[in-house]
Amino acid sequence: MDTKSQASFQEKALELLLHDADKIAKLIKVQMDHLTMPSCPLYEEVLDTQMFGLSREIDFAVKLDLISREKGKQILDTLEKELSLLHDAYTNK
Amino acid sequence: MDTKSQASFQEKALELLLHDADKIAKLIKVQMDHLTMPSCPLYEEVLDTQMFGLSREIDFAVKLDLISREKGKQILDTLEKELSLLHDAYTNK
Repeated sequence: MDTKSQASFQEKALELLLHDADKIAKLIKVQMDHLTMPSCPLYEEVLDTQMFGLSREIDFAVKLDLISREKGKQILDTLEKELSLLHDAYTNK
Repeated sequence: MDTKSQASFQEKALELLLHDADKIAKLIKVQMDHLTMPSCPLYEEVLDTQMFGLSREIDFAVKLDLISREKGKQILDTLEKELSLLHDAYTNK
C-alpha cells in the first residue's frame, strides 16, 4: 500500500461523499420528474435510509478530520432542501 | 491541521469502527441480559439501523483503504453472530 498524505485522503473522502450525495440527489430528481405518479411510501423510506447512511459516513469522515464539520453539514443541508422541495411538491399537488 | 500519515489514519479509523461496533455489542448484551422481558420490536429496529450505519462506515473506510475488506467483514460478522444468538435465545424461550 502506498503511503498517502492527509491531503489525498481528504480529497478522496470528499469525492466519495459527494458521489453518495449525488446518488441521493438523483433519486430525488427521478421522483420530482414523476410527480404525476402517486407518491410511493417505499421511495420515501429509501431516501430516509440513504440520508441516514450518508450522515453516518459524514460523521465518520469528520471524526477522522477528513472533512470539516461545516462541509459535512452543507452536503446534508443541500439534500434536505431538495427533499423538502419534493415534499412540498406533493403536498401542493 | 497536522500532516498525518496513512498509518495514523488507519489506526484512528479502526478505533472509531471498533468503538461503534462495541456500542452495538452492548445493545445486544443488554437485551440478552433481559431475556425474561418480552422482545421489543423497536429494539430490533434500532439494532438493524445501527448495523446498517456501521456497514456504511465500514464501506467508506474500505474505499479509502483505511481498513481491509476482510477486517470490515470480520467486524460485521462478529456482530451478526451475536445478533443471531440473541434471536435464537428468543426463539427457543
